[in-house]
Amino acid sequence: MRIREFVAEDWSQVWPIVEEVIRARETFPYDPAMTTEQAYGMWAEAPPGRTVVAVDGERVLGTAKMGTNRPGPGAHVSTASFMVAADARGRGVGTALCRDALTWARLQGYAGMQFNAVVESNMSAVELYLREGFAVVGTVPGAFRHPTLGRVGLHVMYQEF
Amino acid sequence: MRIREFVAEDWSQVWPIVEEVIRARETFPYDPAMTTEQAYGMWAEAPPGRTVVAVDGERVLGTAKMGTNRPGPGAHVSTASFMVAADARGRGVGTALCRDALTWARLQGYAGMQFNAVVESNMSAVELYLREGFAVVGTVPGAFRHPTLGRVGLHVMYQEF
Repeated sequence: MRIREFVAEDWSQVWPIVEEVIRARETFPYDPAMTTEQAYGMWAEAPPGRTVVAVDGERVLGTAKMGTNRPGPGAHVSTASFMVAADARGRGVGTALCRDALTWARLQGYAGMQFNAVVESNMSAVELYLREGFAVVGTVPGAFRHPTLGRVGLHVMYQEF
Repeated sequence: MRIREFVAEDWSQVWPIVEEVIRARETFPYDPAMTTEQAYGMWAEAPPGRTVVAVDGERVLGTAKMGTNRPGPGAHVSTASFMVAADARGRGVGTALCRDALTWARLQGYAGMQFNAVVESNMSAVELYLREGFAVVGTVPGAFRHPTLGRVGLHVMYQEF
């Protein structure tokens, strides 16, 4: 597996990953009815942001987008989002994408990385982020409506570089 | 003073308030170089969001925008932002705008209201929100670069209805 920059031709493999994740409504506060065009606009970051794919040969296993978390006086903090294909989970794809994003953000000169809305029931993501050096800054109670668990919290997570 | 819906003709009075606030870079993580056109697009909310003004006769003293904080599984939580003209501060305009937004959000059926980025050095805002029933859920350390204080934290604040 290697990680490389996203190119438009990857979208035919990236969209099924994004679609499965947003339709499941378990891990991202995104509109689950988003179209492929809307999703492309949301996921394919223009500079200074960046979108990447994790590939095994020609096959896309996962994807990440990263960039500036807030404009103006907040622009020294980065953010990132990660999605892994359902049948590629549990093999370190998310970890590799997270480490790639952290390396990129450090090289860009950001002071830290913030995740604004990590679903607290998404234990594989929460544990991955904790292992990679993030801390839970706070949890907004019940801010995410999970299809089977009901209202669960959204963590704000942060790592200073 | 009364609060009413924002109409496009109000912009000639609202923009100077917004401009002073964003150029000061002390209270909002917004692009301080924003143009009046960009600011209009950012501040004048389309339904289901709402923008209001606090007026004394014909004069606009302050303004608020409010709406849904996150899409999809996060859409049951509202958010809001408030700005008060520099020479109208300390007279309860912010409190009136905050109460109006809370009343609106309750009537719309939201489950709570979240503020995503309250500058911790903005004590008048922090104290107002605490008085009106919000709690600090967490603080992202140093996430806001203040022009004189350096890096200060951004509070995430929340109130369940």
